Order: sequence, then C-alpha cells, then structure tokens
Amino acid sequence: MKSGLEKARVLVEALPYIRKFAGKTLVIKYGGAAMLDEALKRSVAEDLVLMKTVGIHPVVVHGGGPEITLAMKKMGKQATFVDGLRVTDLETMEITEMVLVGKINQQIVGFINRLGPLAVGLSGKDGNLLSVRKHSGRSLKKEKGEVDLGYVGEVEKVHGGVLEALRSQGFIPIIAPVGLGADGHAYNCNADSVAGAVASALKAEKLLLLTDQPGLLEDLKRPESLVPTVRLKEIPGLVKRGVVDAGMLPKMEACERAVRDGVGKAHLIDGRVPHALLLEIFTDQGIGTEIVA
Amino acid sequence: MKSGLEKARVLVEALPYIRKFAGKTLVIKYGGAAMLDEALKRSVAEDLVLMKTVGIHPVVVHGGGPEITLAMKKMGKQATFVDGLRVTDLETMEITEMVLVGKINQQIVGFINRLGPLAVGLSGKDGNLLSVRKHSGRSLKKEKGEVDLGYVGEVEKVHGGVLEALRSQGFIPIIAPVGLGADGHAYNCNADSVAGAVASALKAEKLLLLTDQPGLLEDLKRPESLVPTVRLKEIPGLVKRGVVDAGMLPKMEACERAVRDGVGKAHLIDGRVPHALLLEIFTDQGIGTEIVA
Amino acid sequence: MKSGLEKARVLVEALPYIRKFAGKTLVIKYGGAAMLDEALKRSVAEDLVLMKTVGIHPVVVHGGGPEITLAMKKMGKQATFVDGLRVTDLETMEITEMVLVGKINQQIVGFINRLGPLAVGLSGKDGNLLSVRKHSGRSLKKEKGEVDLGYVGEVEKVHGGVLEALRSQGFIPIIAPVGLGADGHAYNCNADSVAGAVASALKAEKLLLLTDQPGLLEDLKRPESLVPTVRLKEIPGLVKRGVVDAGMLPKMEACERAVRDGVGKAHLIDGRVPHALLLEIFTDQGIGTEIVA
Amino acid sequence: MKSGLEKARVLVEALPYIRKFAGKTLVIKYGGAAMLDEALKRSVAEDLVLMKTVGIHPVVVHGGGPEITLAMKKMGKQATFVDGLRVTDLETMEITEMVLVGKINQQIVGFINRLGPLAVGLSGKDGNLLSVRKHSGRSLKKEKGEVDLGYVGEVEKVHGGVLEALRSQGFIPIIAPVGLGADGHAYNCNADSVAGAVASALKAEKLLLLTDQPGLLEDLKRPESLVPTVRLKEIPGLVKRGVVDAGMLPKMEACERAVRDGVGKAHLIDGRVPHALLLEIFTDQGIGTEIVA
Amino acid sequence: MKSGLEKARVLVEALPYIRKFAGKTLVIKYGGAAMLDEALKRSVAEDLVLMKTVGIHPVVVHGGGPEITLAMKKMGKQATFVDGLRVTDLETMEITEMVLVGKINQQIVGFINRLGPLAVGLSGKDGNLLSVRKHSGRSLKKEKGEVDLGYVGEVEKVHGGVLEALRSQGFIPIIAPVGLGADGHAYNCNADSVAGAVASALKAEKLLLLTDQPGLLEDLKRPESLVPTVRLKEIPGLVKRGVVDAGMLPKMEACERAVRDGVGKAHLIDGRVPHALLLEIFTDQGIGTEIVA
Amino acid sequence: MKSGLEKARVLVEALPYIRKFAGKTLVIKYGGAAMLDEALKRSVAEDLVLMKTVGIHPVVVHGGGPEITLAMKKMGKQATFVDGLRVTDLETMEITEMVLVGKINQQIVGFINRLGPLAVGLSGKDGNLLSVRKHSGRSLKKEKGEVDLGYVGEVEKVHGGVLEALRSQGFIPIIAPVGLGADGHAYNCNADSVAGAVASALKAEKLLLLTDQPGLLEDLKRPESLVPTVRLKEIPGLVKRGVVDAGMLPKMEACERAVRDGVGKAHLIDGRVPHALLLEIFTDQGIGTEIVA
Repeated sequence: MKSGLEKARVLVEALPYIRKFAGKTLVIKYGGAAMLDEALKRSVAEDLVLMKTVGIHPVVVHGGGPEITLAMKKMGKQATFVDGLRVTDLETMEITEMVLVGKINQQIVGFINRLGPLAVGLSGKDGNLLSVRKHSGRSLKKEKGEVDLGYVGEVEKVHGGVLEALRSQGFIPIIAPVGLGADGHAYNCNADSVAGAVASALKAEKLLLLTDQPGLLEDLKRPESLVPTVRLKEIPGLVKRGVVDAGMLPKMEACERAVRDGVGKAHLIDGRVPHALLLEIFTDQGIGTEIVA
Repeated sequence: MKSGLEKARVLVEALPYIRKFAGKTLVIKYGGAAMLDEALKRSVAEDLVLMKTVGIHPVVVHGGGPEITLAMKKMGKQATFVDGLRVTDLETMEITEMVLVGKINQQIVGFINRLGPLAVGLSGKDGNLLSVRKHSGRSLKKEKGEVDLGYVGEVEKVHGGVLEALRSQGFIPIIAPVGLGADGHAYNCNADSVAGAVASALKAEKLLLLTDQPGLLEDLKRPESLVPTVRLKEIPGLVKRGVVDAGMLPKMEACERAVRDGVGKAHLIDGRVPHALLLEIFTDQGIGTEIVA
Repeated sequence: MKSGLEKARVLVEALPYIRKFAGKTLVIKYGGAAMLDEALKRSVAEDLVLMKTVGIHPVVVHGGGPEITLAMKKMGKQATFVDGLRVTDLETMEITEMVLVGKINQQIVGFINRLGPLAVGLSGKDGNLLSVRKHSGRSLKKEKGEVDLGYVGEVEKVHGGVLEALRSQGFIPIIAPVGLGADGHAYNCNADSVAGAVASALKAEKLLLLTDQPGLLEDLKRPESLVPTVRLKEIPGLVKRGVVDAGMLPKMEACERAVRDGVGKAHLIDGRVPHALLLEIFTDQGIGTEIVA
Repeated sequence: MKSGLEKARVLVEALPYIRKFAGKTLVIKYGGAAMLDEALKRSVAEDLVLMKTVGIHPVVVHGGGPEITLAMKKMGKQATFVDGLRVTDLETMEITEMVLVGKINQQIVGFINRLGPLAVGLSGKDGNLLSVRKHSGRSLKKEKGEVDLGYVGEVEKVHGGVLEALRSQGFIPIIAPVGLGADGHAYNCNADSVAGAVASALKAEKLLLLTDQPGLLEDLKRPESLVPTVRLKEIPGLVKRGVVDAGMLPKMEACERAVRDGVGKAHLIDGRVPHALLLEIFTDQGIGTEIVA
Repeated sequence: MKSGLEKARVLVEALPYIRKFAGKTLVIKYGGAAMLDEALKRSVAEDLVLMKTVGIHPVVVHGGGPEITLAMKKMGKQATFVDGLRVTDLETMEITEMVLVGKINQQIVGFINRLGPLAVGLSGKDGNLLSVRKHSGRSLKKEKGEVDLGYVGEVEKVHGGVLEALRSQGFIPIIAPVGLGADGHAYNCNADSVAGAVASALKAEKLLLLTDQPGLLEDLKRPESLVPTVRLKEIPGLVKRGVVDAGMLPKMEACERAVRDGVGKAHLIDGRVPHALLLEIFTDQGIGTEIVA
Repeated sequence: MKSGLEKARVLVEALPYIRKFAGKTLVIKYGGAAMLDEALKRSVAEDLVLMKTVGIHPVVVHGGGPEITLAMKKMGKQATFVDGLRVTDLETMEITEMVLVGKINQQIVGFINRLGPLAVGLSGKDGNLLSVRKHSGRSLKKEKGEVDLGYVGEVEKVHGGVLEALRSQGFIPIIAPVGLGADGHAYNCNADSVAGAVASALKAEKLLLLTDQPGLLEDLKRPESLVPTVRLKEIPGLVKRGVVDAGMLPKMEACERAVRDGVGKAHLIDGRVPHALLLEIFTDQGIGTEIVA
C-alpha cells in the first residue's frame, strides 16, 4: 500500500503539467482496444474527467468499425472494404449512424457520466458540426482506379460553434464520426481524420490518437523499435520505407494535417495501457510517438 | 396570388405575439403524423427555425414508437405492450436507443439544419439530462397487477445544464426520450411525460403537444366537439367520463403536471395541420385544446 | 379572409430575411406622404416596431419642411427658398427647431410608442450627434453665385455614441435634422443628407429613403419607367439626362455617399405604399430603386 | 489671484463629498433665474459636467413657464391660470410642447454640450418616460370647485429605462416636463412634481430644487429667517402657518413625496447663487433648506 | 520506483476531492515547524500551488513569533509575555511589523513564487484588511487582573475587498498578522485568531491550522490518543479537562469561532508531516483533528 | 477665508484636467522631503486619494535610502556607497527589505488609508512584480572598474498582473523597490528606475518623480534657472554640460526610458511643495520640468 507521502509526491509531480495545459484544448481519438475492455473504458473515462476537473478541455472523437460490421451481420448484410474504407450503401449508412450515434457514442457518454454529468454526445449533424464531401474513391494504392464508396465522406469544414457552447459550460463533447453532406445525407467518416480536422479547427494544443500498438514501430514485432519523435519532413520517407503501413497511414495523415494547421503536437499512444492519456499528459517521459513540426 | 399589402398585414398581426414570447422557452412534443409526412416535417422545421429566429426558445422532445417496432421486426423481435407501454428487455432497449438516438433524432436534426445550423440532438444521457427510475409497472387500469416492464423509465429529475448551454448559444435542443437510470442503464421513457418534465424544469412559458387529432374531443368522431379549454380541476371528471381516453391519458397527465409546476399553459394541437405551431403561437384564436390552471 | 395556412406561409417566407438582417442597422429617412396620412403613419410605426422586435435595428431620420412653412406663416413670416434650400434667419431657425424637435419628432415618437415604449426622440444637439458646418450657399445650378442661406448646415461629423447607447438598450432613435454648429448655434439640415451621413457613420446595412414616387423614374409620368437598380457609376449620366431631377438630386447624393462609405445598399422606395418598409425588407422582389456600388 | 496651494486645498476639501456621492444619482429641478441669466446658465452647466466627470449621475428636469406665456402671446393667445396651473387647451399644449421640448430643452442641452458631448434631451414621451393622468382640477384652495385644466397632467409612473440607458453610457439626461397620457396626448406637467417623481423612481440620493430665494424663509423679506432643516412631520404646521406659501407648496410637496419614497434628502437651494449646486454638494455647510425624513 | 500506473491511480483517487473543493476558499494558518524546515517549506509551497492550479482558493495567514524575539534580541531588547501574549511597546511593534511584513511574509511569498507568480503578500493595513481593537489584556487565567499589553490587537472586522481582488485574478494572498487600529497604529495579532476571522469573513469551506503536534491529543505524550473529531458542544468539557491546554486554547477558540460563523469544518493538522495539506484535502482518511458544528 | 464662489471656480478650473486623465494611469516616484515631513506626507496622501476618486489610477513607487542607513547603524553596520549605489551584502539586503517592505511601505499605506481603504503595499516579489538581474557594477564614471555591489538589481521585466488586479478593483498599489532575482534572492533597486520601468510596462500617461529641487536647474543655486521642458534629444547635451549631475542622472535616465517606451510625458517636480501632484495634474501651468519625446 502506498504511503501518504508517496501519494502527495505524485500529485506534486503532476503540478507543472496541470499548469501547462490549463485552459487548453486536447482532441482525443478514442478507439480500438480501449473501447472494448471494461477496465480500459473506465480508465479512459477517469482520465477525461480528471483533465476537465483540473481545467483542461478534452474533446473526444470515437470510432466504431467492428460494431458496425457486427450490426450489419445481425441484419444479414455483408461488409465490403476497399483499402480499409467500408463501401457504404444507403442501408449500411443507416445502420452505421444508428450504431455510431445511438449505441457507441451513448455508451461512452454513459461511462463518463457515472463519474459526473460532463459528457455530451454529438454527431456531425448536430449544429452542422462536420460538413463533408463524398469521398472521391481514389484508391490509395492507385491500382484499382476510382471506386464509388457510397456514403463515405471527407471533412470539408468543422463548424465548432456547438463544441464551444459545450466546452465553455463545462461539458466534454463526444463526437461520432458521421458527417453531413451538402445533399443532406449522413456520411460515414474516418474517425482519425475527423479528430485531426477538429483539432485543426479548434487550434488544439494536442491531438492524441489511441492506437493498439505502442506507437510508430520500425518493426511491428519489436516494441523496442518505437520511433519516439517524427518530424513532418520525415513522414514521406517513413511511408516509403513502409514504417507507416496502410493501417497507420490515415492516422499519420491526420497527425500531419493537424500539426501543419497549427496544433502543437500530435501523439500516437498505446490505448492498451491503462491511463495512457494521463501518463502522456502528466508525466515527463510521455509515451508513444509524437509528431512535431 | 397574395398582394404585398396582405403579406405585410400578416407580419404585423404576428407582432404582438412575437413580442410576447421573445426570450421565452416553449417545449414541444413532436410526434405522430407530423413526423411521418415529408411536407409536415418541413413545416415543423420551418416553424421551429422561425421561432428561434425571432428570439423564442423552442426545446423539442420527440417520440418514435412505430419506428422502434419496425426495427424490432427487422431483427426478428416481437413487440409486446401493456397498457400502451412497451415491455422492454435489454435487447429491445438497445434497439430502442439506436432507433431513437441514432436514427429519428438525427433525422429531425438534419431536417431542421437544412434551414440553418441550429438543431443539436440530445439523449437523456447527455449531461445526465434525464435521471429516471424504473417504471413501477402499476397497471393503469389496475386489473392486471404489477408487471415488470423492463427498461421503461419515469423521469425523476431533469438536469437542465446542457439545455441552458445550448439554448443560450442559439441552438435548438432536440431530445430523444431515453433516460439514464441510477444503475447506469438506458431506459425508454414516454415522450409526452418527458416533454412535461422538461417544461416544468425549465419553467417554460408553454408546453405544446402535437397530436393526431384536433385536440381533446367530446366525441372522437365529431371534430366540432373540440373542448377549447380545460381547467386543472376539470380533468378528473373528463377522465371519468372517458373524454380523456387511454391514448390521451399520458398526454393529459403531462399537461397537468406541467401546469401545476408553473408552466403558463399546455396545449394539445393538431400536428396534421401544416404550421400548427406557428398558428398556435402567432394568431389570436389559437388552435386545439389549452390546459390552464 | 385569409386561412391560417396562408398566414403561416407569409411568416415562413419572411424567415430568411429576418435571419439576414438580424442584428443589422437600417437607417430610414421618413418624410413626405408617409408623414401626413394617418394610416400610413400607423403602418410605418408598425413596420419599425416589427423590425426592432425581430432583432433588426432601425434608426429614423425625419423631415418636416411643410410644417415649418406653416408655422412660419402662422407667425407672419414668409418662407424663401434658393434651389430648394430654405433661407434661414435666426427667427426662422428658432421656429424650425421648435417645429422639428418639439412637434414633428414628438408626434412620431408618440405614434410608435403606442405600440410599445421603444422610440426616443433626438436632435443633432443631443450628445452632439450632428456636428455641422454652415452651408456654403454655392448654388447648385451655379447661376446665381453664392447665397447666404443663414442657419442651414451640412453634416461634418456624426457622434454616434448616443445612438449606440439607445440602440443597444432596445430603443429606436428618431432623429430631427437639426445640427450643432461650431458656434453653438442650431442649424437646419437636409434630412436626406442627415440620413445618409448617419448610415455611413453607423456602417448601416441599408439606407432607405421614403419618397412620394415609386422610385427613380425615367419618365415621371410613367410609373412603369421605374429604374430598378442604379450603379454608382451610372449616376452622373442619370443626372445629365435629367432622370435625376432637382428634387431627386439630394436624395441620390445621400444614397451615393452612403454606398461609397460602405453602406450595403441604398433604396428609394414609395412611402405612399402601406408597409413599404416591410415589403422592401421582407420580400424577395423588393420595391422601388436600389443604389448599389 | 489665488495661489496654487489655495487651489489644491479647495480640491482636497471636496474629496470626501466626491467619494460620498460617486456612483449616486442626483435629480435636479432647474428653473427660475438660473435659466435666464447667461452667467448662471454657464455655472449650472459647469456644475453638472463636473459632477458627471467625477462619477456622480445628475438627471435634470427643467421648467419653462415664462417662455410658454411669451410664445402664446406671440401667437395671439392669452394664458389663463387657476391656482398657478395653466389652463391648457389643445393649441396651448402644442405651443407648450414646442417651447419646452423644441426650444428650452435644446438650449440647455446646447449650453452643457459646449463643455463636452454629455447632455441628451428627453420629453416624457421618449421611451414612455412619464406616464401621466389628467390633473383632477381639484382647486388647491378648495374654493372654486373642480376646474377642467385641459391638458395638464400628474405623473402616474416613471419608466426609467431610457434614463438608465443614457446614464450608464455617460450621458446627462435633460427632461422636459411633458407627459404622455393614456389617450396618446401630450400633457403639461409641473416640473417640480416631475423632478420629485423621477427622484423617487430612480431612488436618487438627493433631489435638488433650484429656486429664486435662499430656501424656505420664515419671513420672505428677511433672508436671515432661513429654515435650514425641515422634517417631514413639520411640513403640515409650516403650511398652516403660511411659511410654505402657495408658490412654495408644489416644491415642498415634491420634496415630501421624494423623501417619503426613499430619496435621501431634498433641498431647496438658491439658483441665483453662482455654482449653487457645487456648493451644496461639495461643501460642508451646504446652502438653503434641506428636507429630511 | 513508482510505475506509471501507480501514479495514474493516485491522480484518479484525488479526482473527487478536486471536484469537491473546486472554486472553494480554504484558509490556512501557516506556522511552527512547517515554517522552519526547508523541506517542509517547499512542501507547503507545492501544496498551495497545486490547490490553486486545480481551482481551489487558498488564503494563508502566517505567524512568526520566534523570529520577532530573535530580532528583538539582536537590537538588545528583551521580550516579555503574559499568558503567551507578547507585551508590545512602540519599538517592539516596529520591529514586529518589519519582521512579519518585511521578512517572514516576503520569504513565504518568495518560496511560493519560485513555482509560479502566484503569491502576493499583505498586511492587515493593506486595503484596511484587518481592523483591530486594542487587546483588553484580561488575563486568560483571570489570576493577574488586567494587563496593558500595548500594541496587541484583536480583530474587529475583516475588509475582504483586497482578498477578493487578488483571489479572483488568480493570486494566493499571504497575510501577515498585523492589524490596523482606529488610532492608525499597527497592532500585533494572534495569527490563529486572524486566520479564524478571515475564514469567517470569507465564508471559507475549511479552516486549516498547521500545528506542531498530530492534532488534539488526550495525552500529549501519546500520539495515539488523538481526538479525531470535536463537536462544538464538546469544547468546554475538553478545556475543563485540560485536553485543550493553554497553548492549544487560542487555536481551538479560532476553530470554534469559524465553525460557529458558518465555516464548514476546521482542522488542527500536523505541520511536521510533509504535504500535510494535500493529504488532508485530497485523501479520504484526512489527518489530525476536525472541529465540526 | 475663501468665499463659496471662489471655491467653486477652483473646482471648475480642474474640470478639463479631470476629464483628460480619467481612466489613465500615472506612475509616481515618491521620495525625499515629501516622505519626511508630516504635512507633506498628508498632502501626498490627499493628492493620491483625490486622483483615484475622480477616476485616475495612480501607482506609487517609493524610495527609502536614509531609513535603511539609519537601521543599519542601529544594528552596528556601516553603509558603503559606490557612485551612489549602496553596496549590499546579504545582511544589508535583509535589513533593506525589512525597512522598505515592512516599515516605509506600510507607513505610506497607513497614511493613505486613513482617508479611505485604498492603498495596498507590494514588493517586487509579490506576484513576481519585478524580475531583476544583478547590477553589473559598471562604474558610472568608469574610473574604478567593475565593483561587486552585491544584492543590487536592475529591473529586467515588470509582471503587471498584480497591479492590474488591484488597479481595476479600486486600489492604489504602493511598490517598494525590492526586486526578485532569478536566484530567488531579493535585490535592492533604485526607486527612480523602478518607477520608470513600471510606467513603461503599464503604458502610463505620465511618470512623475518627486524631487527635492524645483526641477532641472541650469544653476542649482538659482531656482529661476529652471528648464521647463527637455526633449529626448537634448539630454546628452545636458549631461555633458553637467546640468544633469550625478544625483539627477538616474532620474533623468528613468524619464528618458519611460518616454522612449511610450509614456506620454515624464516630470521632475518639487516634492517640497504641498500638493505638488495636484498642481501638476490639475492646473494649466504645471510645475517643474517635463521630459517629452
């Protein structure tokens, strides 16, 4: 058992970080393992509430791919992917919206609010938060030509008004990655990209992406090959060498865009580690990979 | 075609009403036919945006029963009702939440926001808006004894913070009738009751329930038997005489509760009439039945 | 008689205009027939109050020439004019000030305030609203040489502080066109010019001049010869061709100056049409002539 | 010539008074000799501007009887009085309003604003400042029965909104004693009564009436018979003994009403003394008669 | 060495306490051992800064008796005490003020401000913070009759304006226990009493007195005889039984007065324990003795 | 004895100056004779309170050299000076801090607060108001090489937060010239330089240095040789010619720096004249020497 003094020391060690980030906005992409394990879910909720309590403003964007696939299966639909993007017909989009906005988002809100009435769920339709255009379907690997992905969108503009209204009144916005097309339809968006776009729009201090690995690894099998810091100019080389692989590419692009747009730093951190957010924010060493200008 | 002068006269006639309700909050239960017909949906959206534009603060609570039944059927589940209340097991609740929060609520938000980025969807979990207790299951007709309705809830407390945050920043809150139990579970609630409870909590100027009939009718078959005004003390007699029937009872109870709690007036109005809200708010005669202290 | 639905449609048609002008300032020159006919006076009052109620900020400048002549006659004085400008000796100025500030201004205030305590009368002396210099007396037609017009002034500077104090607290300022000379004397000013100068100073969205004709006419006898739009560069040609005649010239100059100074649009509209202001502001077609950059 | 040190001492002596009245509202009835003599007018203007500059909020109500009689004479009308109240037919009222609002009020505004753009003229119609009822015509001496005084009014209610808007933005409101009847007509009011009613409505710190005598005198011919302090309970006796004569009665009644309504003190001071306001406010001895609870 | 997870858990454990005290004011009497030991001084500074950083408002009152005695000795003066109160002649008072305000207070300010520019030193003269009356000199033990203690004062009134000005702008006020007499002289005050009076005046959430023992002990020699909670009604008995001895009496009286005046709780805590403040505020068990209503 | 009218005229003469400086900040170096003579002390206090009362914001920096020397002598220490700068070892610094912060500063606060609870004492440690670096010890006359002056500092940065907090809440900050070194130590600073740096940091309207002579004199023995105005470019010449002598040099440098940094004007005024501040601020002629850009 920890002594009182040891506890006090931990609090005191956090002090400079609390002071540094007080009043700042952090955008967090929440997904992967951290959304599946009960203990991790609770630890993320605690981290978010602690941040808000000490005066930091977290804004959360969540994913939810596996749940959508599951729900489609239940309704007898088969999911199809092109380069990791789900081909989304009208019926799939309806299921996607219900699952993201009506299930996953609300579960996260519920989890956080057990600790205090702080979280408020949003979709990209609320206050027209996320204006999107149809994804061009340009294959990333350029080998398959253009594909019609259906209701898959790319963020064109973030209308941050509703985030500001909630943030300033003490709430934590939880955003489902569903955008609003100019045609009035809902569009499914990549959650990493949404998080990056929101971070840019809010001039956030940090963008934090929770992933299922320790960060960017030179060799996926060797955790000790972690790349602690990536500068923007190094990214093309890392992609070329395959260190940034297809799965990591949208995350790295989101980080790159955000840092280019003036976000202080972006981080790829290991969502499988309990309290990964707190450790990144409130300790010297930090964890995972940071992307800086 | 209408002349300019006639148009001007209509605007001028609305003037005293605009002045009267400026800065006031109106809570609107949106449901029934007005949620199904495209033209009616558009007319409700226009009415809400017009109100907000001239300085009135509408807060909307919507229903969605038929859609839930439909979605259950799709997933091979049979809906069961006791005295009009859906028996809601865990799986049913999950479907209910997805349909109400992830589909219907977002459709309404989308419809309104085509006219301007004003609507923001909420469930009772957001900011712990609706704290509920499990419905006691006391049969209304007292003939069947207590029934376990499962995840059906009654509003215990409205935490209006998130409504205030959105209202004051120019947004129209759209509330799905899903409450948060002390056990952390979502509970399905009667939308009329939620609307009444929200009106009470916000000390609203008016509670307006959109129904599928012209108001309270002495004889359901004769629209001309409309009861224009009901005083609180007359309600027990109306229930006894069956004028308030089982279908109307939860609506009347919601109105009664709201008026007792200090809401100025409650109204049962005909949601099948285009722009019914505008007509009730901005003309002398009003329409439907008003419930007053 | 108009049905409820038709009424609702008129309100809905006004919606985008209300939204467009909410929070904006409109400066209105009120004069001519609209100041003489009781029904027109009432319709102008209603239009102003409606604007203010829906969040638009009207500022009114009124004229009053005929009443001054009448009052002078009563006191046994003969009015003299040079190119439409009244030669104003000290006694005439005293009468002018009493009639404009003590009679006409107060009548307009009284008329509006029957609908609500909104109007507050001002002269150019109040808070030094209108600093003027003596009119140079340069004859417009250059044929008579310089004339000493006496206490006739041209606006040099608008001190908008008192307008802002009233506007922000929900009042409609009603301005009598009496300016304050550097010598401490009151000076009679042209109301059209004052309206233009006030619009420029307030960076108004629109300047609206109520006239006694349908707008600018190619041929005064043919209302159908209305010029719907005038660009600034077209004005010299219109003056040369006499389309802008001596009576219209000060109005056109006021419009020109305001648009040059950044006012969105200026309008010459027919004050003899009931609710001309509402129709111009709240309908698509607009009426009269607009002057644009 | 005064030395620097002597000047400094005067400023320092004023210090406690400036501190005492900072942020407080003083209502001043301005009339009589102080309105006729050029040097006195200037001294009153300086006193008002000094007060405002050091953070005190003066509100001025002015009279104007003699000017009205003069203007009537010019127009060939004969003034009639009953117990000091002018019988006011429609034509007389029109002249009264023009003289009070369009001439005297504007002269005062102009005089003050030479020192800075502070004064804003108001009538009782502006923002419905003074709601009045028709004067009952009950003869004060009870000997002549009721008389129809025409458009003579008594203040029923002060709507202080416009005063507050101006006061808080740094302006000095100058009020002409013209009220607004429920019939929409202007009514002539006694300026002393208006000042008292305004002081009551604003919960003023002081009501100051400028008179043409040193204060209340036991013997009008002997200035040294000044009554320095009158308590409310002493007033009936003073009226009975004739110390408060017919001319002083409305002033004493205004003071009495104000003090009863919570105004700190009322003062009858000698407007013929230069800077009488400053001396009363900023020196220990004060001057004239004070009326206290 | 502590793992990241253990650190995170400590932060999470503090969460409910941070939330509970956010926005609240805590008044802390700082003295004794905690003012002498370098490590303890640093730990107190860290605790105060941490509190302020997470939104709690600490206000500090410090003592300084031993330093005064030391300084007197340097200047060749002998300190005299009556019942623990220093007899304070004019020269002693001058030394006292210099030591408390110019040395000890500034040392504390300096210590805290190494961590951030938060602390601002105050004496009771600043903004007339502490109005005092001369100590009556009634001997506590009643055996010696009245003694003239000289410039020893008792707090009569706390003018909290300067505290509020600093608190609301993010500063931590550090108060030296020197009061201002009606005679304009400085008076030496008991720091415990000052802390109690300040806590009462600010309606603080807590009063925390740092002492050199573990709290109130039944038997001073046995730390395990700690009295964890004292109710107000139990105090007379504890005094009678000598559990509250002469040294503890002024502390207990300060606690009693504060709790009677509406302060939530008062605490006697062991200033010799590092981070005693953090442990009391941010852990469940608390430490020392609490005094409650 | 002065008549009422004369008093009023003095007040009226001050009017334009009060208006001119309302809301502006004046930084005053208080020292020399004005700190020794009881009557002068009172007159300075009155001047400061009058300024604050009429809406001007004085900020005071005081000196205190002679008192420090006296206190050192009492403690058996000998003061040593190099080019007018006190060589300050650790013990001397401790005495200096106690005398400046704990004695002189508090005396000034006490003197002012007899007139109202306005003054709040500060040292450069409070809120890290004055960040200083060690004085380089470069001899001004360059003849003695570098000298280690010990704890003598030069202002590097002014953190005005605490001044702003106090100023905006109606307090007068009184600053002791003790700065905070990067090493956490207190450093003795030249009060003239501190006043100049504070004036620069606050973008003050004026810097006023109270001196013991009538201003800058061509010939110290002839007061009539006063230089009324000095332009920045004239300073080097004046130094060369010895008009600015060693004693005046730091004052002139402080003035120069402030004016270069945007302070409107700097003034050297005769602190031996009662109410010198008032006379400079509130009369046309001004007194002493002004330094302008």
